[in-house]
Amino acid sequence: MNVQFINPFLESFLNVINTMATLQLTPSRPQIKLDEVARGDVSGLIGMVGPQVKGSLSITFEEQLACKVMQNMLGEAPEELNEEVTDMVGEITNMVAGGAKKILGEQGFEFDMATPVVVAGKDHHIAHICTGKKLIMPFNSIFGKAYIEICFEK
Amino acid sequence: MNVQFINPFLESFLNVINTMATLQLTPSRPQIKLDEVARGDVSGLIGMVGPQVKGSLSITFEEQLACKVMQNMLGEAPEELNEEVTDMVGEITNMVAGGAKKILGEQGFEFDMATPVVVAGKDHHIAHICTGKKLIMPFNSIFGKAYIEICFEK
Repeated sequence: MNVQFINPFLESFLNVINTMATLQLTPSRPQIKLDEVARGDVSGLIGMVGPQVKGSLSITFEEQLACKVMQNMLGEAPEELNEEVTDMVGEITNMVAGGAKKILGEQGFEFDMATPVVVAGKDHHIAHICTGKKLIMPFNSIFGKAYIEICFEK
Repeated sequence: MNVQFINPFLESFLNVINTMATLQLTPSRPQIKLDEVARGDVSGLIGMVGPQVKGSLSITFEEQLACKVMQNMLGEAPEELNEEVTDMVGEITNMVAGGAKKILGEQGFEFDMATPVVVAGKDHHIAHICTGKKLIMPFNSIFGKAYIEICFEK
């Protein structure tokens, strides 16, 4: 897997956030995860299993950004991370993985997705336990940061 | 899916912790998740995908219990949750899912596992975004609590 592989996830994430929340995120350069840590307040995680590969995807939001996405989608801002925000982050994670699955499937890279899990907790961080390279991509906005991390192993 | 379905995960978890860390956990009654929340400091999560089903498993530890498991396995106690503990929780999650997969496979319930993801952060909690029933099982020990949660949907 090379860094180009993250592009379908990147495109899918930008597309989902733009479509659902009319919000523009600015992606930074994707990189092999070494020092950069995805640290945030709410994360959606999803497992992926294909005939030849398996892996995991996480999308981590800072609280203020997650609440802003929620506000733009539903018209009212939650005061804090609640169950509605949790469900939304799970749905976004599902849609991002689904969008990437479609693009990658057309390129002959097949996988199925598990159901998403959402973790909420101030300033948590995430480790993908995977023998393949871990790719991380930070996204910036005036409302806070988000991170996508993916890892596939054969 | 009924509550009995959690038994292979329960047995597998008790077996892994007992074998690897010579530690006895006391399981409480498994229940459909309604009010009980799995809240802890480090969690291993893994996605599961089968021909007819998909789902997710999480194992959440309070910090002191995770450190005690680490101490019993390696002979020295970490002062806090570090990368070694994170890797250990990922490995335990993989082994528990693998053990349950073996038992359930013999009963004709097949699934493959994604790679695990570990989340660390004080007092985080977890939501399985899944249309099926969410089963939760608390475990007690003098070193702290652990929780298993599973959910499968068709």
